[in-house]
Amino acid sequence: MLPSALNDVIETLGRLPGVGPRTAERYAYYLLKADESISLNIAKSLAKLHSEVKTCPITFALIDSENTVSPLYDDPSRDKDTILVVEEPLDIYAIEHTKSYHGTYHVLGGAISPMDGITADQLHIKELIDRVEKDNVTEIIIATNPSVEGESTAVLLEKLLHEKYPDLQITRLARGLPLGISLEYADQITLTSALNNRTKI
Amino acid sequence: MLPSALNDVIETLGRLPGVGPRTAERYAYYLLKADESISLNIAKSLAKLHSEVKTCPITFALIDSENTVSPLYDDPSRDKDTILVVEEPLDIYAIEHTKSYHGTYHVLGGAISPMDGITADQLHIKELIDRVEKDNVTEIIIATNPSVEGESTAVLLEKLLHEKYPDLQITRLARGLPLGISLEYADQITLTSALNNRTKI
Repeated sequence: MLPSALNDVIETLGRLPGVGPRTAERYAYYLLKADESISLNIAKSLAKLHSEVKTCPITFALIDSENTVSPLYDDPSRDKDTILVVEEPLDIYAIEHTKSYHGTYHVLGGAISPMDGITADQLHIKELIDRVEKDNVTEIIIATNPSVEGESTAVLLEKLLHEKYPDLQITRLARGLPLGISLEYADQITLTSALNNRTKI
Repeated sequence: MLPSALNDVIETLGRLPGVGPRTAERYAYYLLKADESISLNIAKSLAKLHSEVKTCPITFALIDSENTVSPLYDDPSRDKDTILVVEEPLDIYAIEHTKSYHGTYHVLGGAISPMDGITADQLHIKELIDRVEKDNVTEIIIATNPSVEGESTAVLLEKLLHEKYPDLQITRLARGLPLGISLEYADQITLTSALNNRTKI
C-alpha cells in the first residue's frame, strides 16, 4: 500500500538495534521530506563501511583498511610496556578523549556472558597473554565495564595473567563517585568503593 | 582517530531525527559487527528513496513514481464523494489498516503552527476546496491530530468549507476512550467527549 521504495527504507532501517517499525517509519518519512543529499550521504557512507574498516591484528582495534596495524600501537610515542584492556573497540575512544593515557590498547571483543553464549575462548585473551611477553609489558590496566560480565572477565584475566607472569602489575580503573552525582543517588557499591579508596586532599 | 569510514557513518546517521552522537555510534558499530548485507541493503534502499517516491498531484499522498495519481484515488471502487483529510501522508495508512473506510484521501501536508512558521497557505487547503466541486463531494471527514495545531486546522477547514459549500456535510473523528485505557487514567477532555457522545447499547 505504501510506495514500495518507502516501504524498503522502513524495512531496512528497522534492522538497526532498538528501531521498531514506528521509529523506522519516522526516520523514512523524515528522510523523504528532507533534502535528498541526506539520504544519499547515508547510503554512500554505509556502502563503504565494511570494505574500509578492518580490525588491527595485534590490538583488535578498528582501523582504516589501508593501515596494517592500529596507529595507536604503531606510534613510537606510545608506551608499549602498558596495555589497557577494553571490551569493545569504541571504548578506546572514550579513553583517548581523556588525553590521560599514553600506552597501547587491547580489545577483548566483548565480555564473558554465559547468557549470550560468550565464553572466554571467544575473546582475544590468548593474544593479550602473548603480547605481554612480546612487548615486554610491565602493566596491564583492566578497563572492562563495571557490569557482572565485565567484572567476571576482569577476575579471569587477572588470574590467567598472574599465573603466567607473577611479576606483572595488574590494575583496574578506580571505582568512586562520578562527577555531578550527589551522595544520595550513588549506589551502595560505588559509595563503598569511594569510601575504601578515599584519597588524601 | 576513528577509522574515517566509521566516522562517516556515525556523522550521516546522526542526521536522523532524535539520533544523537551516542545512538549514531551504537548504530554504526552494530552495522559494522553485523553482516555487510544489512548495511548494503539500507544503502540501496536509501539511494532510490527520493527518485522512486513522489506526491500524488490530486490527493498529495505518497505514490510510486511510476504512478500518475494515488491508487487509492484512482481505484473505481473507492467512493469519490467522501474525502478524509489528514495532516501527513503516513496517516493514510493508519486509516487504511482499519479497513473501515472506502472513500478517498486528501493530505494537507501538516497543520497550522505559528510556532513552526506553518501558515494556512502552506497547506493543501485550496486544492481540497477545489476537489469538493470537481468530485461532487458530499462529505468531508476531518482527521487532523487531536493536538492544538490539528484542532486549529480543523476549525479553519470547517469555516472555509462551510462558507463555500453550505450543504456539504463536514464531520470529524469521534473523541472518546481508547481501547485499554482505564477511566482513572483518561484525561478530562477525552472523558468529557466520551460522556457527551455516549452511544446507546
